[in-house]
Amino acid sequence: MASFPVLLVLLFYTLTGKAIAELTPNFFHQSLTHYLKNSKPNISYETQFFPQLLDHFTFNPQSYKIFYQKYLINKNYWDHGGPIFVYTGNEGNIDWFAANTGFMLDIAPKFRALLVFIEHRFYGESLPFGKDSYKSAETLGYLNSQQALADFAVLIRSLKQNLSSEASPVVVFGGSYGGMLAAWFRLKYPHVAIGAVASSAPILQFDEIIPWTSFYDAVSQDYKDASLNCYEVIKGSWAELQLLYAQRDGLATISGIFRTCKNLQTRYSARDWLWKAFVYTAMANYPTESNFVKQLPAYPVAKVCTEMVMPLSTSNESMFPAITFEIEELGKFCMNKYGVMPRPHWITTEFGGYRIEQVLKKFGSNIIFSNGMQDPWSRGGVLKNISSNIVAIVTEKGAHHVDFRFAKKDDPDWLVEQRGQEVEIIQRWINDYYADF
Amino acid sequence: MASFPVLLVLLFYTLTGKAIAELTPNFFHQSLTHYLKNSKPNISYETQFFPQLLDHFTFNPQSYKIFYQKYLINKNYWDHGGPIFVYTGNEGNIDWFAANTGFMLDIAPKFRALLVFIEHRFYGESLPFGKDSYKSAETLGYLNSQQALADFAVLIRSLKQNLSSEASPVVVFGGSYGGMLAAWFRLKYPHVAIGAVASSAPILQFDEIIPWTSFYDAVSQDYKDASLNCYEVIKGSWAELQLLYAQRDGLATISGIFRTCKNLQTRYSARDWLWKAFVYTAMANYPTESNFVKQLPAYPVAKVCTEMVMPLSTSNESMFPAITFEIEELGKFCMNKYGVMPRPHWITTEFGGYRIEQVLKKFGSNIIFSNGMQDPWSRGGVLKNISSNIVAIVTEKGAHHVDFRFAKKDDPDWLVEQRGQEVEIIQRWINDYYADF
Repeated sequence: MASFPVLLVLLFYTLTGKAIAELTPNFFHQSLTHYLKNSKPNISYETQFFPQLLDHFTFNPQSYKIFYQKYLINKNYWDHGGPIFVYTGNEGNIDWFAANTGFMLDIAPKFRALLVFIEHRFYGESLPFGKDSYKSAETLGYLNSQQALADFAVLIRSLKQNLSSEASPVVVFGGSYGGMLAAWFRLKYPHVAIGAVASSAPILQFDEIIPWTSFYDAVSQDYKDASLNCYEVIKGSWAELQLLYAQRDGLATISGIFRTCKNLQTRYSARDWLWKAFVYTAMANYPTESNFVKQLPAYPVAKVCTEMVMPLSTSNESMFPAITFEIEELGKFCMNKYGVMPRPHWITTEFGGYRIEQVLKKFGSNIIFSNGMQDPWSRGGVLKNISSNIVAIVTEKGAHHVDFRFAKKDDPDWLVEQRGQEVEIIQRWINDYYADF
Repeated sequence: MASFPVLLVLLFYTLTGKAIAELTPNFFHQSLTHYLKNSKPNISYETQFFPQLLDHFTFNPQSYKIFYQKYLINKNYWDHGGPIFVYTGNEGNIDWFAANTGFMLDIAPKFRALLVFIEHRFYGESLPFGKDSYKSAETLGYLNSQQALADFAVLIRSLKQNLSSEASPVVVFGGSYGGMLAAWFRLKYPHVAIGAVASSAPILQFDEIIPWTSFYDAVSQDYKDASLNCYEVIKGSWAELQLLYAQRDGLATISGIFRTCKNLQTRYSARDWLWKAFVYTAMANYPTESNFVKQLPAYPVAKVCTEMVMPLSTSNESMFPAITFEIEELGKFCMNKYGVMPRPHWITTEFGGYRIEQVLKKFGSNIIFSNGMQDPWSRGGVLKNISSNIVAIVTEKGAHHVDFRFAKKDDPDWLVEQRGQEVEIIQRWINDYYADF
């Protein structure tokens, strides 16, 4: 069955190019920053730094340590006192999210909005302990979503005060993990943000809210939809790969076939390398050309694993080899590496998720959950309207937060329409805000 | 003007008795626990302890320290799977709050409800560092409302799981600071509690949401309403007191007149002693006899001052001597005593408060804010309906969370009616919950 590696080479080299070959084999615990450190996109923002508290939720002397949180600001379109659009940064350099969230820049003139992109603590230049930030659990313990949300709240409040624009309505935007943050921010800080646009935010991919196999089933479905034959070839290929490993110089052979930059070191690195390539391809199935995939994390929440425990496993129907999620294994890993245990139920305790329709039906408002069904993470998203004010915008052909990308001339109608819907809803939130004033 | 001390003695000795004489002079920074340490009320609850995490919002090795949080439980009226009523404990021994929140016990049979009273961390027996809990900012830094709310969420979730009753609707109740916690809990954890009854919760007594003089103006108004003459006598009395101090043995004379247990040590202790007595009397103006006042804190949030900065000052119209709130002074005090600075804007950043009507009009549901206008803390409460689901119940004659006390045969009609309204609303929340299931 010599055709399989050739097929794979074609498939991945065409779609993802050299970037894929640079990926690290550490599947679940990698940082987007890693990919992006050399990425310096050209963006129309001024860079600022805000003195931020290390720990918002304790009042120990060490909690008062100040670090400088980076944010980007664009006042070009702003009518003073008008709306403020804030991107709630996720795991990476904020410049990169600004460069890849053209939607906000596209719509700013219409709303005469101020644009702000806030970097997430522990990423980019917002390192509370400088180069030692990732040194140990002592430093890394301050990296989590609740602290990040509080950072956003404190920074936005201070910024509005400094701009003498306390009455400006704030709308938060975020994609992927940033989308989770945007949605949670609206839920936890409704007094700071009047609404949230959460694109491709898998807020239900926790605990046992949805089946753990959903993600890989969705990836497999994407391939099945494209070609049943392709799906079956891939499904069978893992065994072939096993055989190839067993040969003398098997790994070198595989490295050669896939044109990896470095030789693959272990049988697992080859498997993971392919695995991720399949996932990226499914996530980044954009309607127009994009360099986004080069910089996309396979796992949207590339963080220390103590907090964001997203259980994923494969089913028999999946095209991937069998993996099961074992919290005990993860516990051992975290304990060995960081000396702390994961808290697998914490995210759902803090932010909810179970029976979200019933919980939010009569609670909360002004959230857009947008998802593209081509994106396997959509299965962990909110795919149905919860109320007249908490709405799901689902596109059959959409990929990972495609709505947030710069508009292009050749964008398909469904994408133009989706963005139009989002603009219309945001406009309604702002109108309502001023009507209530 | 010899009549003034006699008047005061009559006024206070009659109303508050010996308990007043035991109060400490440290006006703002005292703990209710202090008063209650010998209070062992007879209550129908089983005592349990829950292993709780020290720090929910960081993931440092020290965050994982476990302490045992006390809670009380009463299953006598519960139909398994039925509603769970939880009291979100405030600053004191939880036994005492259980004994003084008879309302929950009174209504439990009607709802076939399980009753749970959760003790607030750092009070009663729920001391994370045992007798060293109040030793320094290193230990005290973990005492704050966000950690307390997270404690409640984690405990409730675990309890429901242990009881195999995950689908039970939870309603939270709280009075005073406990009422603030109950309201905030519903706002931050709508997936855990379907509704909150917040009695006498001054959630707006922060930052610059309401005038800083509101509280003492309200106390003064209570006295003015009772007797204009009384108000004027008190207003003039502070100067008389000053004169008395200046005399040889002045303090001993005052101690004798007021029958304090111990001799007053400084001129300020006498002033504070009287000051608090006036405040208590206004807060505890109950329609039926009560021993509640003996154990009532003058300041509903008797906590370390870093977090709960409630600015209070007096106006010219007040019957109290002029005091002004100076954040710089408080800062110096906290810095000297604990080595940390207060965060005066933190509570409003985390929980909101400004323009609460507009913020919550289309966000949030199922909260009752009940306030008695005799209670000076009511001025920091929510006194108007925000929406059809976030309602204010205001009684002209009500005192500090009088609705939460055991029903008595001779309760006035307005109080019976108020409790009836609350029961009706809670019933609606529960019906809605089951209807949506």
